[in-house]
Amino acid sequence: MKKFAVLLSGCGVFDGAEIHEATLSLLAIVKQGGSYEIFAPDTNMHHVINHITGEEMEETRNVLVESARIARGQIRNLKQFNPMSFDGLLLPGGFGAAKNLSSWAFEGADATVLPEVEEAITGMVALKKPVGALCISPVILAKVLGKVHLTIGDDESTIDALESLGANHVYTTHGEVVVDPDHNLVTTPCYMLDATIDQIADGANNLVDAMFKLMK
Amino acid sequence: MKKFAVLLSGCGVFDGAEIHEATLSLLAIVKQGGSYEIFAPDTNMHHVINHITGEEMEETRNVLVESARIARGQIRNLKQFNPMSFDGLLLPGGFGAAKNLSSWAFEGADATVLPEVEEAITGMVALKKPVGALCISPVILAKVLGKVHLTIGDDESTIDALESLGANHVYTTHGEVVVDPDHNLVTTPCYMLDATIDQIADGANNLVDAMFKLMK
Repeated sequence: MKKFAVLLSGCGVFDGAEIHEATLSLLAIVKQGGSYEIFAPDTNMHHVINHITGEEMEETRNVLVESARIARGQIRNLKQFNPMSFDGLLLPGGFGAAKNLSSWAFEGADATVLPEVEEAITGMVALKKPVGALCISPVILAKVLGKVHLTIGDDESTIDALESLGANHVYTTHGEVVVDPDHNLVTTPCYMLDATIDQIADGANNLVDAMFKLMK
Repeated sequence: MKKFAVLLSGCGVFDGAEIHEATLSLLAIVKQGGSYEIFAPDTNMHHVINHITGEEMEETRNVLVESARIARGQIRNLKQFNPMSFDGLLLPGGFGAAKNLSSWAFEGADATVLPEVEEAITGMVALKKPVGALCISPVILAKVLGKVHLTIGDDESTIDALESLGANHVYTTHGEVVVDPDHNLVTTPCYMLDATIDQIADGANNLVDAMFKLMK
C-alpha cells in the first residue's frame, strides 16, 4: 500500500490549511487504495483571522495544534518527517501555505520557506518521489526548486511572481492537473479558482491519481 | 434545486463539528444536485480542546466564528434560519453537537438543547421536511422529539440514554442509514464507529440520498 504524507498549515482557509482541500485529499488517497500520515510544523500561526469578518483576532494559535483538528488528533511534528518512509508528499492549499509554511502572502517571490518544509520537499525530490500541491501551495515548490512546471490556475500576479523565479506556469481550469516529470511534481488549482466543493473533489482525485502514477 | 441547511457546531471533532463529516456532507449535497447554506449558533463554545493532547485550553472561542472556517466565511447565525426557505436540515456530528448545540456530553438524557437548535428542528418537522443527523447528533433529535427511530451505531451507554427518552434505536454499521418515516428523520453513525474517511463519505452520501427521497 502506497503511503502519503500530508502536510497541513493550520485549519481554515484564511490563516491555515483549506479544510475542503485537506479533507478531500485524505479521502482521495484512501479511495484510491493508499494510506496517509499527517504532519504540520510546530510553530505559531502568522496570525488568526476571523473567518466571518476577515479581520485579525488578538490571539496566538499553533499550526500543529490547529492542524490536529483536521487530523482528528493523529498528527506529527514535521521535524519527524522522514522521506524514506513515504511514497508521496501532498500539500493542500489555503493561506496557511503562504502565511505559515512560507511568507509568500507577504513577500511574494522574495518569500522565505520554513526550513522543515523545504527539507521535506527536497528530501522527496532527491528520492524521485512525487510531491503534490493544491491551490496556492505550488508557490512553495517554485520557491524551493526554481525551474519547475506547475499551475496555480489563472491568477496573473501570482503567475508573474512564479515566472520571476524561473517557473513555467501552465494555465488550468477546474480539476486539471499539471505534471512536472523532471521533478515528479503534480499541481492543481482548486480554490485558486472560484470553485465549488465538487470541483475541489475532482482536483484532489486527479492530483492523487497522477501522484500514484509517478510512484515506482 | 433542493436546498439544504447545514448546521455546524464549531470546527474540530473534540469541541466542535467533525470536519470530515461536515465537509463530506457538503460534497454529497452538491454531487447529488443540491445546494446548501451553512448555519451555526452565535454562542461561546463550551470549551476549547487541544486536539493533540485532549486537554482543555484556556481560551474562549465562538461557535459561529469557528464554524466559519469550514464554511469558508459563508455562514449565517442560526437565529436567521427559516424552515420555509429550505428543503432539508442536516447536522454533522462531532462533540460540538453534544457540547455546544446541547449539553448531552455532560448530562446525557437530562441534557438541554440550545433554543434556536430546537426551533430549527421542530420547524422542519412541522413542515414535514427531512432532518438528517450524523454521528452523535441524533441524540439531539431524540431529546427534542422523543419517540423517534434513529441510530448512533452501537455505543451501549448512549443507546441506553436514548431509549430512556422513548427513542427506538437501530444498530447500524458503516454507511448504513436509519429512516424515521413518521418524522422524516435520517441518521447514520459515521465516527460514532471506528471508521475510515471513505466510510464517512459513504455515510454522508447515503444520508443525503435518503433525505432527497423524503423531499416532496
